[in-house]
Amino acid sequence: MNISEPTFLVNESICRNNIREMVHKAKTSGCIFRPHFKTHQSAAIAAWFKEEGVSKMTVSSVTMAEYFSSHGWTDILIAFPFNILELERVNKLSQNIELHLSVESAFTINYLAQHLIHPVGIYIKIDAGYHRTGLDSSNQITIEKILQTCDSSPNLAFKGFLAHFGNTYHVRGSGPVRKIYNESIKQLKLLKQKYAEQYPDLLISIGDTPSCSLVDDLSDADEIRPGNFVFYDLMQLQTGACRFEDIAVAVACPVVAKQPGRNEIVLYGGAVHLSKESIINETGNHIFGKVVKLLQNGWSQPLSNTFVSRLSQEHGIIQCSDYVYKNIQIGDVLGIIPVHACLTANLHQYYITTDGQIINNIHTQR
Amino acid sequence: MNISEPTFLVNESICRNNIREMVHKAKTSGCIFRPHFKTHQSAAIAAWFKEEGVSKMTVSSVTMAEYFSSHGWTDILIAFPFNILELERVNKLSQNIELHLSVESAFTINYLAQHLIHPVGIYIKIDAGYHRTGLDSSNQITIEKILQTCDSSPNLAFKGFLAHFGNTYHVRGSGPVRKIYNESIKQLKLLKQKYAEQYPDLLISIGDTPSCSLVDDLSDADEIRPGNFVFYDLMQLQTGACRFEDIAVAVACPVVAKQPGRNEIVLYGGAVHLSKESIINETGNHIFGKVVKLLQNGWSQPLSNTFVSRLSQEHGIIQCSDYVYKNIQIGDVLGIIPVHACLTANLHQYYITTDGQIINNIHTQR
Repeated sequence: MNISEPTFLVNESICRNNIREMVHKAKTSGCIFRPHFKTHQSAAIAAWFKEEGVSKMTVSSVTMAEYFSSHGWTDILIAFPFNILELERVNKLSQNIELHLSVESAFTINYLAQHLIHPVGIYIKIDAGYHRTGLDSSNQITIEKILQTCDSSPNLAFKGFLAHFGNTYHVRGSGPVRKIYNESIKQLKLLKQKYAEQYPDLLISIGDTPSCSLVDDLSDADEIRPGNFVFYDLMQLQTGACRFEDIAVAVACPVVAKQPGRNEIVLYGGAVHLSKESIINETGNHIFGKVVKLLQNGWSQPLSNTFVSRLSQEHGIIQCSDYVYKNIQIGDVLGIIPVHACLTANLHQYYITTDGQIINNIHTQR
Repeated sequence: MNISEPTFLVNESICRNNIREMVHKAKTSGCIFRPHFKTHQSAAIAAWFKEEGVSKMTVSSVTMAEYFSSHGWTDILIAFPFNILELERVNKLSQNIELHLSVESAFTINYLAQHLIHPVGIYIKIDAGYHRTGLDSSNQITIEKILQTCDSSPNLAFKGFLAHFGNTYHVRGSGPVRKIYNESIKQLKLLKQKYAEQYPDLLISIGDTPSCSLVDDLSDADEIRPGNFVFYDLMQLQTGACRFEDIAVAVACPVVAKQPGRNEIVLYGGAVHLSKESIINETGNHIFGKVVKLLQNGWSQPLSNTFVSRLSQEHGIIQCSDYVYKNIQIGDVLGIIPVHACLTANLHQYYITTDGQIINNIHTQR
């Protein structure tokens, strides 16, 4: 590979392995697998899922739904509070594909009932403790209003209850993740029990990568929608959802300068290539990425005592040990393991596999 | 305007005013004006500079230099440590335009001396206290090595000493900014004195928006390269470099849900539209943007006690007062004033002026 500027690298075999493992987990748990494609936003990577038998998908915007629909996907859930200003585009999309929307207010469901032209599936978004969006599971009044509107509208088919246990991102280790999963799924099971007679096919749909990776038996859910697991990243490594070996992506960045007084290495690779997402690492440092050596078809273990300590628009500053400092030269290309792969991938107009294949995504200039 | 998804808004008349004021400041200080175009990355906005007589520019990547060169700009400085892996593209560019590079090592200048095909201007990058990149002004050995290489190479024309006083971003108010400016410019003036006889035309080139906005008389510099001032943002407001009325950009975001228990408003507008750059506001909260009402051809003052408190990939969460909460409805479109306009602008494939004109940028799909 001939890399001369910041480039998003994908290890295809790790990706395909991550996909296969999650397909297997869904199968053994008896769950529908509806992976979230906001992480990669790429029709080429979506095709790797298709090869494993996946035919349903989740996205977080109408734009992504349009993109994947134009690449032949026909069963798409937009897991984002429905934006009434995009009704026209939804009416176009739902003409051709099986489209599902997420709703959490009487206002929005009434709007849909009045303006939809074609049938869509409706998931009611439940807040099981993450407190970003969704209805409290005890908010019976609003839940029933939404259900009644679905029942009385020919274009609204109630599919089930949807939640994202995003609070699993803020804990570490399988114990705390399982605890959040158990407390959250319990609320959804109670809802299911309550409405099972009226809606025998209703689904419990859950989403986060930490739960889906760390909980062995997901059979209390009917559908899972993890996204990040296809790439994994430092955040997931920190929650314990993956091993370093499962991380499938790195950003290749040229070394452009060295600062001997401070043991700092200056990269062409900044906030516009990595994103400003950061974590606190094991030594208490705020970091924007770990550093690896690029190898034939992959990369090394992370270099010890070495991390991206600061970012500006185009610059990345690596803080490193004497040993690493001495062994890295201007003109080298290093790999940076991203903190949050979804945000990092979104900054690149294409990816390159470690075998040198170019992978287009939603941002690729046509 | 018919906005239905997160959209980067530019108030053209504020922009043009910011440009005119900086052109005036450069003129009265007797400085060459070489504004940094990494902030807007747009040939259309660059044309507004041209209308004010600007013909020189700064960028931070070879890609941006190629883009602006293809739009007719012929005098471009890449103010980023020269990346030897992009030599071929630099050789192509310098065939057609007056190109200037920033260098801070003997290794890189030797590489250029050996491989350049056409003449380029060379600025030596000096670290005047920001400690991101550059040579200490006392590092005579490396400075003289670079100068000697320039002198002996027909393709290297030494232009002067370049610095970016980026530490001004971390202080508040004109006093502390002026203090950093004075301490930093002093080092560059000493260097200039030292080499003035040998290089009578050498320039002191400085960059940051806080200095250029807050220091009344910039005549100790020979060239100024501010970038952010064309848009300004909450960071610049916090340093005191601008008034709220000088901020020329906002991201229009649809309201998709409301959380009554928490006085939270959920936006379609997340980290992929605003960036994860944050500041601590006057009440000690970590914020990702302030909130305004969109008006005919502009926007309101920021809504009080109201700010973007959290971002995920596509979601933005606004924390607000009871009054604001009651007055905002699902389907409204709010404006978010960005923390760091450069990073926010970079996330958008086009901008829209408050008069409804579409403005292309480097990311616009052709």
